[in-house]
Amino acid sequence: MSESASQLATLLVSCPDRKGLVAALAQLLYGHGANIVDADQHTDQTAGMFFQRIRFDLRELHTDRVGLERGIADVAGRFEMTFRLAYESERKRVALFVSKYDHCLYDLLLRHRAGELACDIALVVSNHPELGYVAAQFQVPFHVFAIDKQNKSEQERAQWALLDAERVDLIVLARYMQILSAEFAERYATRIINIHHSFLPAFVGSKPYHRAYERGVKLIGATAHYATGDLDEGPIIEQDVIRASHRDSIDDLVRKGRDLEKVALARAVKWHVEDRVLVYGNKTVVFE
Amino acid sequence: MSESASQLATLLVSCPDRKGLVAALAQLLYGHGANIVDADQHTDQTAGMFFQRIRFDLRELHTDRVGLERGIADVAGRFEMTFRLAYESERKRVALFVSKYDHCLYDLLLRHRAGELACDIALVVSNHPELGYVAAQFQVPFHVFAIDKQNKSEQERAQWALLDAERVDLIVLARYMQILSAEFAERYATRIINIHHSFLPAFVGSKPYHRAYERGVKLIGATAHYATGDLDEGPIIEQDVIRASHRDSIDDLVRKGRDLEKVALARAVKWHVEDRVLVYGNKTVVFE
Amino acid sequence: MSESASQLATLLVSCPDRKGLVAALAQLLYGHGANIVDADQHTDQTAGMFFQRIRFDLRELHTDRVGLERGIADVAGRFEMTFRLAYESERKRVALFVSKYDHCLYDLLLRHRAGELACDIALVVSNHPELGYVAAQFQVPFHVFAIDKQNKSEQERAQWALLDAERVDLIVLARYMQILSAEFAERYATRIINIHHSFLPAFVGSKPYHRAYERGVKLIGATAHYATGDLDEGPIIEQDVIRASHRDSIDDLVRKGRDLEKVALARAVKWHVEDRVLVYGNKTVVFE
Amino acid sequence: MSESASQLATLLVSCPDRKGLVAALAQLLYGHGANIVDADQHTDQTAGMFFQRIRFDLRELHTDRVGLERGIADVAGRFEMTFRLAYESERKRVALFVSKYDHCLYDLLLRHRAGELACDIALVVSNHPELGYVAAQFQVPFHVFAIDKQNKSEQERAQWALLDAERVDLIVLARYMQILSAEFAERYATRIINIHHSFLPAFVGSKPYHRAYERGVKLIGATAHYATGDLDEGPIIEQDVIRASHRDSIDDLVRKGRDLEKVALARAVKWHVEDRVLVYGNKTVVFE
Repeated sequence: MSESASQLATLLVSCPDRKGLVAALAQLLYGHGANIVDADQHTDQTAGMFFQRIRFDLRELHTDRVGLERGIADVAGRFEMTFRLAYESERKRVALFVSKYDHCLYDLLLRHRAGELACDIALVVSNHPELGYVAAQFQVPFHVFAIDKQNKSEQERAQWALLDAERVDLIVLARYMQILSAEFAERYATRIINIHHSFLPAFVGSKPYHRAYERGVKLIGATAHYATGDLDEGPIIEQDVIRASHRDSIDDLVRKGRDLEKVALARAVKWHVEDRVLVYGNKTVVFE
Repeated sequence: MSESASQLATLLVSCPDRKGLVAALAQLLYGHGANIVDADQHTDQTAGMFFQRIRFDLRELHTDRVGLERGIADVAGRFEMTFRLAYESERKRVALFVSKYDHCLYDLLLRHRAGELACDIALVVSNHPELGYVAAQFQVPFHVFAIDKQNKSEQERAQWALLDAERVDLIVLARYMQILSAEFAERYATRIINIHHSFLPAFVGSKPYHRAYERGVKLIGATAHYATGDLDEGPIIEQDVIRASHRDSIDDLVRKGRDLEKVALARAVKWHVEDRVLVYGNKTVVFE
Repeated sequence: MSESASQLATLLVSCPDRKGLVAALAQLLYGHGANIVDADQHTDQTAGMFFQRIRFDLRELHTDRVGLERGIADVAGRFEMTFRLAYESERKRVALFVSKYDHCLYDLLLRHRAGELACDIALVVSNHPELGYVAAQFQVPFHVFAIDKQNKSEQERAQWALLDAERVDLIVLARYMQILSAEFAERYATRIINIHHSFLPAFVGSKPYHRAYERGVKLIGATAHYATGDLDEGPIIEQDVIRASHRDSIDDLVRKGRDLEKVALARAVKWHVEDRVLVYGNKTVVFE
Repeated sequence: MSESASQLATLLVSCPDRKGLVAALAQLLYGHGANIVDADQHTDQTAGMFFQRIRFDLRELHTDRVGLERGIADVAGRFEMTFRLAYESERKRVALFVSKYDHCLYDLLLRHRAGELACDIALVVSNHPELGYVAAQFQVPFHVFAIDKQNKSEQERAQWALLDAERVDLIVLARYMQILSAEFAERYATRIINIHHSFLPAFVGSKPYHRAYERGVKLIGATAHYATGDLDEGPIIEQDVIRASHRDSIDDLVRKGRDLEKVALARAVKWHVEDRVLVYGNKTVVFE
């Protein structure tokens, strides 16, 4: 992270659409000496909702962060805004949840090391010990929570304690083969990203590649979405597909699908940690 | 169609997989003086089924067509083959079924005129009179069968009579907004191609663009498939997708989707009339 | 066009990047009662340039258009902005230039009729008479200017007179097989969109499909760009590609390419008439 | 590798197109008891050339491999065939050449470990020591050959000695930042696969992402090709692209491009080691 990056902040806003919104925020930031370097907005006409992402430079701030935050809160109050303010100097802390498949884990760790993901990988959590050596290669702490029907609730609580202790902001289910409880999903609402190996809502549930094979589709896909209590029904962040044909066995679909899973999940994580994603209803606004 | 094209034939074969199949057919054709110009084959290991498409040149045939057909039938008998032999000089006759949307109709008529589709467009059938002028512009007969609950069965019978009189080989439902009876679908099994405006099996049924919008998918699609009695469940021939985002209204999805519908349907029709598609179970083998 | 659409305007701005730009424009529009419905911006850090597209609603304007335009001009002067203000009630007038290929012509006319292109198709110009019947089917005036080496300069002048008389805002070279003079390109700078049948800068010049075939590429493409005096070197607006293989003959590439040419050109025209494209240097900013 | 896989062989054939070719090969294999499990063929009508890939099962061979090979050589002689016969039990030995970028190296090693690439990774060669730890993590020998203008010829000879000693069948230039001599390319003709980070023939040469950025293209690409003495001019095996926009800095293009480089190179390597690629002239036939 360069010094200038450490002086940038991102404001994410959603509220009922009203006149003067854009001017009010722009004026406020200008008044405090915050220089807008990027702004994107969207109005959902049907829902009557307004969404905005503003990225600005703090280096010539006339006031301090406290003053700026108070100013934003004032405008937010006036326009019934929900907002989130993130400083790039405070990198999000991410926990990767995995089981035995290593492709998404490797992919995220390598992208992180290449500087593609502006976050810290705080830890890897698994319900199996197999992938510990991968985490070790990247010097990331690895924690195993073996889970069965009896201990699930208890183990989840232990996970929460760990996540709290590690101040985790985002959980990435990188082919984690264990269903989270509704309570878990609720606790980390819009802070858990899952990768499903189909172009949802096709093939909701398990064994999507098998079912894609049986249905004879000519495309297979992958879907990155926020996890909710309703399995595979959470807000979609990113999807991708690749062509399939009668020549593809289930194994071929699995192999082709791995590439989709990796890129769809990586994009979703990248966008989330860069504060590009807003959730409303069961949908997302992604300011790419 | 060049003279040489008129001397080409295509053999489509499916049968239980067995040793010596390829040699037997190749030897037979060679023995009759038929020169193979293209061959493609596929073995579904799971189903234990063998499929082959052989395109050959008849110009130096030592025997005549009757002799050749008898030879093929002999080999077919020996290997329990289902086969279909098509001569390119006998172009398939196609009926386009439409309602009020004109984009697929125009697209198919223009591609046909450009020489992309090796078939004859015998007639256009509609349940509404609106698109008659389009058919007229391309000098294709246009027939209206207004359909309601009372007269549906009777009108379908009238359609069959017309299709028989016109010796129609293939029916293309080019956004035909009227559900065919199961009897109709059965009568023309694997000879009716429909275009569905979603990446099936997502959004089976009606209003898929609305439902895609509500679900917040990041891709929309279109699926060309053979129509069966089970709505939207028939064997898939081709699918295509395009990216969507939070910026797309339902109207935008409809607009983007038109392009997908056109190309997916056109490819499926092209492949069918070139005898590149084999159906087995509820799937297709497409020898592109 | 709905009544509300007729009350919308779009402001396109480019200028050296400076603090307070966004606030100044937002404040100005708010002050005049113009309600921002959509805004998108981009800063090219390398070039130090700022670009913005603001779409706003005029229905509750406190002042009149003259007052608003004066206000914008003031801000523009202060920030050394180049700007363009377009009212949606004043639809751009487009001339389609064609030769003998009909696919892009039909495609644009059909999309226009379907309401995809928010412009008026004022006339079709050709150097050949063949496609007159297509223009006639859509009730668009058709003008032939036969061009050879001797009369080229004179005929171009005659074309300019016609374009002036018809108040044409945009010229679309829809597979027009005649090179415009540098003077022509200069006269309509950033107001001529051409479609080139390759993924430029590969295969600059003529016969790109033949050269793609010879080079054995596995993708073919099409590029929509603004025409300049340097052939095929103008700012790129949109590109698209499709897979090719050893099975594709040159004719197959031509056929597949037609679909690319249509969609790439149509998107470029759509974006231009919706004032989504800004040119700087030899590049474009496209606010999709 | 399952036992049955070890009993499969692949025959790749190219020759002037002639009648009876397909029958002759099919008959020969049948006669020896070799069961064809997959066959694909292609005729380049323009070049008058025939290409075929036949994969067959040796488990019920009536004769032995020597007899089979003599039979194939006889047919080959009769039809002026060039042919290559590969037994799946004899896995190709691959050398990965790298410099400092690790993404293609990791990608190939991980795919290999996941069973996607049916070859042995015999060694990693580099002109820099940096990536030794990656090779070590996968237990692959790592050899450094520091190269400068003075020692280039000598070091290449040393590399050849090593490649010979390791019986290497294929060299993969996985972002190897050192140009091979023409002699090197010639020595391993059609046995060196390179990845170029552009959609060739656009941006031949160095710094393609910078030049893509300057040209303002809306797509960036990657090309896997056989290396020849003419830099970036060798036969193309695979290409892929991804959309770019004005928002993408050069760093963004580099980041997006890495994903393309990985998949295009991995597919090319996979197809080569599965004997799916035939070179003729400066083009490839890829039997996917």
